[in-house]
Amino acid sequence: MPEFFNVLPPDDARRLLFEHLEPLAGYEIVATDEALDRVTARPIKAPHALPSFRRSTMDGYAIRAQDSYGASSALPAYLTVVGEVKMGQAADVILSPGEAAIVHTGGMIPDSADAVVQVEHTQTVGHQGVNFPPFEIEVLRAVATGQNVLQVGEDVPAGGDVLSGGHRIRPQDIGGMLALGIVEVQVARRPVVGILATGNEIIKPVQTPTPGQIRDINSYTVASQIRRAGGLPVLLGIVPDQFDALLAAAINGLRNCDMLVLSAGSSVSVHDMTVKVIDRLGEPGVLLHGVATRPGKPTIIGVARSQAVLGLPGNPVSAMVQFSMFGVPAISRLQGLQTGQRRGIVWARLAANVASESGREDYVPARLFDSPEGLMAAPVFGKSNLIYTLVNADGLLKVPLNKAGLEAGEQVEIQLF
Amino acid sequence: MPEFFNVLPPDDARRLLFEHLEPLAGYEIVATDEALDRVTARPIKAPHALPSFRRSTMDGYAIRAQDSYGASSALPAYLTVVGEVKMGQAADVILSPGEAAIVHTGGMIPDSADAVVQVEHTQTVGHQGVNFPPFEIEVLRAVATGQNVLQVGEDVPAGGDVLSGGHRIRPQDIGGMLALGIVEVQVARRPVVGILATGNEIIKPVQTPTPGQIRDINSYTVASQIRRAGGLPVLLGIVPDQFDALLAAAINGLRNCDMLVLSAGSSVSVHDMTVKVIDRLGEPGVLLHGVATRPGKPTIIGVARSQAVLGLPGNPVSAMVQFSMFGVPAISRLQGLQTGQRRGIVWARLAANVASESGREDYVPARLFDSPEGLMAAPVFGKSNLIYTLVNADGLLKVPLNKAGLEAGEQVEIQLF
Repeated sequence: MPEFFNVLPPDDARRLLFEHLEPLAGYEIVATDEALDRVTARPIKAPHALPSFRRSTMDGYAIRAQDSYGASSALPAYLTVVGEVKMGQAADVILSPGEAAIVHTGGMIPDSADAVVQVEHTQTVGHQGVNFPPFEIEVLRAVATGQNVLQVGEDVPAGGDVLSGGHRIRPQDIGGMLALGIVEVQVARRPVVGILATGNEIIKPVQTPTPGQIRDINSYTVASQIRRAGGLPVLLGIVPDQFDALLAAAINGLRNCDMLVLSAGSSVSVHDMTVKVIDRLGEPGVLLHGVATRPGKPTIIGVARSQAVLGLPGNPVSAMVQFSMFGVPAISRLQGLQTGQRRGIVWARLAANVASESGREDYVPARLFDSPEGLMAAPVFGKSNLIYTLVNADGLLKVPLNKAGLEAGEQVEIQLF
Repeated sequence: MPEFFNVLPPDDARRLLFEHLEPLAGYEIVATDEALDRVTARPIKAPHALPSFRRSTMDGYAIRAQDSYGASSALPAYLTVVGEVKMGQAADVILSPGEAAIVHTGGMIPDSADAVVQVEHTQTVGHQGVNFPPFEIEVLRAVATGQNVLQVGEDVPAGGDVLSGGHRIRPQDIGGMLALGIVEVQVARRPVVGILATGNEIIKPVQTPTPGQIRDINSYTVASQIRRAGGLPVLLGIVPDQFDALLAAAINGLRNCDMLVLSAGSSVSVHDMTVKVIDRLGEPGVLLHGVATRPGKPTIIGVARSQAVLGLPGNPVSAMVQFSMFGVPAISRLQGLQTGQRRGIVWARLAANVASESGREDYVPARLFDSPEGLMAAPVFGKSNLIYTLVNADGLLKVPLNKAGLEAGEQVEIQLF
């Protein structure tokens, strides 16, 4: 179908792609403290309650709450301190009515106590200074049952949900698992994403171009985007604009990768060739070639036997924007990511008019700066051939599908890079 | 000064810390394609112009613009196509007036041409189909000088700014450097940050706690935060609550690290001991102990001979929030990061009232969810001893210093984790 330009809005295009993609089979086991940004392969439950014993949230005295009822500065309750619970040790003090035990923040509460009165609400009777039990205290304020006490399982109960499956692991998730002694975790494999650059004019960055040649950019920007998304990029090299060579390289790439990206040239003939190659890789082949966005309309989205194949436009700006729109979500999908990956967004006031067309979603690079009126966003205009429009920008400004443009002074959303 | 609780608002506290911190001396040279998220050690200039030759942005014909002046569908201009510029090759065609050359998107423009007319605005004379020069075309639309042409240096001129010093390298920056043949880059060293956990009750996560013991969490959440910020975490182990042991471990840690984090216990006596230890490590010692925030008021900020030393509260929520407030910016500072690191923020409608106190900046974990009214933020209440208040949250809701609380229904800012 090389002649038929099947153009869809980005959300519909993504939905179509996702209908054909399944999370990768299998998983890896990694040390929990090395699992940052990996995606859990299945739900994780708490092997025991956390905390596993009742703990004090204050420095003070473990008591029976009822011994403090009615206590005030004017009419203190008198208690006898009979022991101390040392940090890291079991609370083996047994309190009879009218007795108290010294506890420290995080320390264990004796079984016979049910509350903690903080030290600031007490007063030692007789002398000041360091006291060794037994000694007398005045309790100046009543505490309720359970006050200043972390209950067993208050953080997470035994068998409770720790993390859902398909969750990207953050610093606190690592802490939460380790607190429960979960020192290994099953995570999704990192999707291996092959990148093929095509173009007779493309050379490696280490080479010096002769007139007419340019260095490969897209393989490297896309590789960095793949890394950030949790995938493993594999650079499959540069292939000339030749059907057989490209087809052979693509077939070989798909054999060793979970997903394939073709960074094609931007001329119509090269585009058509890429479409034909993707259609030969396996069913269902090309799903659409054309997304209603700027930059990046001539993006090709295909699937070969449940492996995603993306044909990116050769322009570096288009390639990067389109990969963030389809490649990054596809990598998340392959990892089985369920929890919404909300991208960082800032709101800013637009510093200049931005023209667009209704029926097309535009992404305009924008630079952020502070002003007396708050955060401002200046559109960075430039052809999508110019990588430096992205280098000089802080994020992308989205002009929605149904808008013909945005006006200076409007509040706009910027997706940060 | 253990008795004097010097409490500052967070911005003032950070400023005070920064007055004593300098970027690390020295730099590393890394391959550009491995430099993602590293910070440039110095400004980078373009060794040559990009593009280095004039390129076409369209498939079409390179012409002299004046040969098309006045052309229209009704009155086309007639030109003779005398050659083709092949992709990746020098444009060695010489055009006389009235002549044109086939060019492809990204191809080189002949010296004698100054514009490109796109193929859709032309028509071959005589027959349709593939043509080999020479043949005649009708130009149906006039083009201006420079139209559809990328000029030499339009992306970046020779000697132009590529990246400033102190810039965190993103995917497009890697592409921008490689386009210019910059295959190696000088970047700041990764700050080595030592983490010392203290507490008689703390055990390693692989160990099974006896009553009164808990597993170390903070070393691992903070290590993950350090990694995300571009630093190299070094776990220095768990030290008992003993002045001499902690001092010896801290001195040793500072010898091998650029910065030191003490994850101390939360009891007053342990806090005071940490303050004394930090004061013994070198001048100026403790700068303040206490930040007007919740969670995390008893944070200790110190500097020993220009090395930052942070004493974090033992509560895992406090530790993580405080480290993001002071530790992460300190790591950025040590790398000489200049470009503002704007954190991802989303706006949401608050789902429940949040109480606070004026004069204190509160950070409340919040979970985001979609509703018919748009994105909502539900505060996740819980004691700061509970790591799962962070595990169950998507970000932090900030209650500003001058507010006594926030009301359900208000639009609020959530800093994403």
